[in-house]
Amino acid sequence: MERGFDIVKAGHIEFLVTDLKEASRFYVDTLGLIVTEADMSHVYLRGLEDRSHHCLTLTKSDAPGVGHFAFRVADEGGLNAIERLAKSKGGATRWVEPGAEKGQGRALLVEDQFGFPVEFYSEMAKEEWMLQKFQSYRGAKVMRLDHFNIMLPDAAAAYDWYVNGLGFGCTEVTETEGPKPDLWAAWLRRKHTCHDIALTTGKGPRVHHAGFTVSDRSSIMDAADLLAASGYLKSMERGPGRHGVSNAFFLYLRDPDGNRIELYTGDYISADPDWTPVRWKLNDPQRQTFWGAPTPQSWFDEAMLVRSPGTGRFAKTSAPKIKDRPDYLLSAK
Amino acid sequence: MERGFDIVKAGHIEFLVTDLKEASRFYVDTLGLIVTEADMSHVYLRGLEDRSHHCLTLTKSDAPGVGHFAFRVADEGGLNAIERLAKSKGGATRWVEPGAEKGQGRALLVEDQFGFPVEFYSEMAKEEWMLQKFQSYRGAKVMRLDHFNIMLPDAAAAYDWYVNGLGFGCTEVTETEGPKPDLWAAWLRRKHTCHDIALTTGKGPRVHHAGFTVSDRSSIMDAADLLAASGYLKSMERGPGRHGVSNAFFLYLRDPDGNRIELYTGDYISADPDWTPVRWKLNDPQRQTFWGAPTPQSWFDEAMLVRSPGTGRFAKTSAPKIKDRPDYLLSAK
Amino acid sequence: MERGFDIVKAGHIEFLVTDLKEASRFYVDTLGLIVTEADMSHVYLRGLEDRSHHCLTLTKSDAPGVGHFAFRVADEGGLNAIERLAKSKGGATRWVEPGAEKGQGRALLVEDQFGFPVEFYSEMAKEEWMLQKFQSYRGAKVMRLDHFNIMLPDAAAAYDWYVNGLGFGCTEVTETEGPKPDLWAAWLRRKHTCHDIALTTGKGPRVHHAGFTVSDRSSIMDAADLLAASGYLKSMERGPGRHGVSNAFFLYLRDPDGNRIELYTGDYISADPDWTPVRWKLNDPQRQTFWGAPTPQSWFDEAMLVRSPGTGRFAKTSAPKIKDRPDYLLSAK
Amino acid sequence: MERGFDIVKAGHIEFLVTDLKEASRFYVDTLGLIVTEADMSHVYLRGLEDRSHHCLTLTKSDAPGVGHFAFRVADEGGLNAIERLAKSKGGATRWVEPGAEKGQGRALLVEDQFGFPVEFYSEMAKEEWMLQKFQSYRGAKVMRLDHFNIMLPDAAAAYDWYVNGLGFGCTEVTETEGPKPDLWAAWLRRKHTCHDIALTTGKGPRVHHAGFTVSDRSSIMDAADLLAASGYLKSMERGPGRHGVSNAFFLYLRDPDGNRIELYTGDYISADPDWTPVRWKLNDPQRQTFWGAPTPQSWFDEAMLVRSPGTGRFAKTSAPKIKDRPDYLLSAK
Repeated sequence: MERGFDIVKAGHIEFLVTDLKEASRFYVDTLGLIVTEADMSHVYLRGLEDRSHHCLTLTKSDAPGVGHFAFRVADEGGLNAIERLAKSKGGATRWVEPGAEKGQGRALLVEDQFGFPVEFYSEMAKEEWMLQKFQSYRGAKVMRLDHFNIMLPDAAAAYDWYVNGLGFGCTEVTETEGPKPDLWAAWLRRKHTCHDIALTTGKGPRVHHAGFTVSDRSSIMDAADLLAASGYLKSMERGPGRHGVSNAFFLYLRDPDGNRIELYTGDYISADPDWTPVRWKLNDPQRQTFWGAPTPQSWFDEAMLVRSPGTGRFAKTSAPKIKDRPDYLLSAK
Repeated sequence: MERGFDIVKAGHIEFLVTDLKEASRFYVDTLGLIVTEADMSHVYLRGLEDRSHHCLTLTKSDAPGVGHFAFRVADEGGLNAIERLAKSKGGATRWVEPGAEKGQGRALLVEDQFGFPVEFYSEMAKEEWMLQKFQSYRGAKVMRLDHFNIMLPDAAAAYDWYVNGLGFGCTEVTETEGPKPDLWAAWLRRKHTCHDIALTTGKGPRVHHAGFTVSDRSSIMDAADLLAASGYLKSMERGPGRHGVSNAFFLYLRDPDGNRIELYTGDYISADPDWTPVRWKLNDPQRQTFWGAPTPQSWFDEAMLVRSPGTGRFAKTSAPKIKDRPDYLLSAK
Repeated sequence: MERGFDIVKAGHIEFLVTDLKEASRFYVDTLGLIVTEADMSHVYLRGLEDRSHHCLTLTKSDAPGVGHFAFRVADEGGLNAIERLAKSKGGATRWVEPGAEKGQGRALLVEDQFGFPVEFYSEMAKEEWMLQKFQSYRGAKVMRLDHFNIMLPDAAAAYDWYVNGLGFGCTEVTETEGPKPDLWAAWLRRKHTCHDIALTTGKGPRVHHAGFTVSDRSSIMDAADLLAASGYLKSMERGPGRHGVSNAFFLYLRDPDGNRIELYTGDYISADPDWTPVRWKLNDPQRQTFWGAPTPQSWFDEAMLVRSPGTGRFAKTSAPKIKDRPDYLLSAK
Repeated sequence: MERGFDIVKAGHIEFLVTDLKEASRFYVDTLGLIVTEADMSHVYLRGLEDRSHHCLTLTKSDAPGVGHFAFRVADEGGLNAIERLAKSKGGATRWVEPGAEKGQGRALLVEDQFGFPVEFYSEMAKEEWMLQKFQSYRGAKVMRLDHFNIMLPDAAAAYDWYVNGLGFGCTEVTETEGPKPDLWAAWLRRKHTCHDIALTTGKGPRVHHAGFTVSDRSSIMDAADLLAASGYLKSMERGPGRHGVSNAFFLYLRDPDGNRIELYTGDYISADPDWTPVRWKLNDPQRQTFWGAPTPQSWFDEAMLVRSPGTGRFAKTSAPKIKDRPDYLLSAK
């Protein structure tokens, strides 16, 4: 812990939704997340594998988007070191009192130099483990949060912040073509999986999606059947399929407000100390979907706005200087 | 057997291929069919569940297409009754000597009133059952032939021939919209599954695909991974996904010559005597793919020419008088 | 239909249960069967794939067992021919009025020459198809009834009745060892699967189990998890595993009254007219479970008594003259 | 890294086998491990997910057993700190030159205070990643090594060494019954899974098994079919089934020499800093197999002897002072 802090994993995310009841029908009744606690304006959800209070908060809001996303830190003391580091890079910080977010201890909310609202926390209330309460399994049987995927104009700068600043390891990258390739996207991890956060080039700051783990490919097929039969036909934006990057099996969904999540399963363990990033070219047709199916334009056009901790309004976005999608989609645009 | 014959099931199909070695790499090494016998110009293949000589014949040819497809009949004596009936409807018939097609007894080859080369046979040599020889399972682990899907201008006329002439039962139909709907497609069966043959409106006579059964959805996912890694990325034309019609899970493939097959699993048992056809509308977005993914235009544009038993050349095709695809694809064309 | 009747498939079975509420918790809440109709003393259930009124009736009773099992016949007119044939073999018959069993047309109830209460019927009310109503899928997601397995002292005599009398085809047999083997068990079918009924040597007349189909192996694994977590640990008598006979994947369960069912998936299509029975030896360790796991003694000791249509009491049982289980279990007894 | 070293994960294990060809037929042809390198007396194997030289070494020997098992350490420099610590606890240590074990850098071989031969290493040669080379997938498709399970008389002492000495976290424990329970077994991890090593009470020092990860439950079912058809019926000692501890799906196998491995899939991510051990009682019938199937006595009686680095002979074993199995197996013994 030479940095003075030790980030453990992607911890939770707050989705802004316009109708808590509709959102609950989607996340609880259909995806199978467990309600830990709810009040007039929030529903706190955890997965079947979670032992902590929440990995997803639904917050009643006038417009969809992301309130914040959060990383869990090994020791509460590490938060101070993160505060100093974030400030030194131009981030704005604010302390969140214990319990201000239900179930959570003292937390640090950062508006980072890219405009993302990122929370760091260590303590969270323990909850009943549902892992072997199979009678509580429902719908898509979501097990836990796995990762965030964020979109911003300068992925290389964010790479530097996450890797050299916050201590993430890099498992895979995507680069543009040509003799002097640009870093186009990176998959970064603290826990021993493919990633806790992915950085993608595009208009931003925006959150592209939050990835939630399910047990296996059968669960994703069952989820697709269930969604199609439950009035969520339009929710299925992409997949099911196999990713090139991460090797995971996936299905991308839009919630009733258009917020995007991924059902995700089957990546790998990345604990090796000498891991070198797997390198992909942006135009490789098997990069996004190993089976070659093209990704829809909406996947590149649409993402979730993020609420600025400073202003309480959505952060303004800028466009990237390099292309924001593969050539075969640029030409089809 | 009031008709004097009793058709049992879709029996086998002959695919014309331009390169037996390339075709074998696809069907044997990758899809896992078993070679029963081969000579300079043919490879006779069976599935892991088959106890008979072949369900697929690859025949060396100058151009891809279908030589014939064949139904198995309960008694050899029934072939004569079929001959009389086929002739009465304007079909041309020819007897195929025992052994002229390897492993097969006396057979009747009909060029039916729609121009399709359809064989009827009862006897076929028995072969070793590989069902529990799991050490012989390879690749996509194809179990058996399930059905043929043929395309022709007048599906209603073919429906009459198959149902009232040949005694097939109808499990599902697709109709056009409007107050006086046309029959657009029908799924017909003799064995107790969803279908042995499907009749689809389109330019014809052509064979759209042959459907082969695999054990479960996992086998189809594994097949997609294997094909994508084996240089067959372009082979995967549509899927994997869930059908609306038939409820089966599917993946459509093009062989190295462009002949089309379906990997298929998970339809239903249709033995009930009072089965009424399940009715679909052509424009229903869940009809073809229950999860709503659009079908590519190539699926409607391309199909396999059939070789005329009379001339030895491919049968000339005609266009249908009604639309040949859903409106959302017509407008995108 | 030279016999004057055409049996289509195993149709339904009536289980006697001592507590309808407890039984419903098992069959409906946990196994996922659909309630079509219920009254004070009956619950009529169908599977997700069924289009007819019921495949399982739960009848309130003082003691567990089987009220009757039933085969569906293609034409109502065929029932008269069955009546004549059954009587000629020493069976007793009785007509069941339309509606006397909910949803069912006129039926023939036979107490056959072996003491089994066997019903034959043709008409049954049609019900909503739940196959693609995935939002109604629950628990073990039972799709349909597949087969009955009955136990009686003289399997060879029953074989003669079912094959030569009722017109069943034989897919597999088990024989004793030695130069003059006895028929020990037979798997017989009308629909195109491995079997509609299996005849096993043992104390009888008793019904060993009713087999219900689920979609795939994953469903059986999920069912085991769910049962273990729902207080049904003792219900899981044998499996999950792969059968040698039938090649199906299985899990045997005892309901709260001890009645036995099988969750079953993945046998084969048996439509071929030249099917020759697959032959197994009783002592083959892979016959029952292909992976070699020994079958518990309870599987041979315990089975369901059948209620005599004549007396309304359970039929008296007799022991077989040949051994009732493999030698490795006899010696362990 | 306050300890001066940072253990990353269970790295590899050396199995002693009497016939390299027979062992290769099992591990390579049937389980699907990849041969990285081989010589007259060794075969070095890696899994489909591995990017390093080997996770399993087969070494020709006069008798089966375990040569050593090894943990990967983050930095080569950490090995010196481990040496000091091991010696301070009474362990004997020896340096292994780079390349003395193929593909491996400098390593520390410890004969620990319990008699186990444990290697620590940091560097290992990188090899081609087969993860998306699906055309190379074979048999049981083993992905990687997951954990070791060792058996020794005093599990509590080993717990102290691994947790307080080597810095492992504890995810689950098993305790004996009664008011003053003994620690009977513990599951310990460095990487973010259920465990890298399990400590079990029994005659020791012995290695009970090495656990290898496969992708999902279907892979384990397929492996069971393949093993049963390939002459390895007797190899399948226990399972398939669901564990209580770890929640993983499992199948235990004995190799041709009797060495034991586990095919393992579906445990959980344990990255949380406030993880408290899941507690099981030894006699809980769902602890070992969640579905309640009893564990065979051989599972408690038999384990692999370990070769002493000092003498080159198998380490002598001692019996535990507390019971070595659940009461229901003790009474059946």
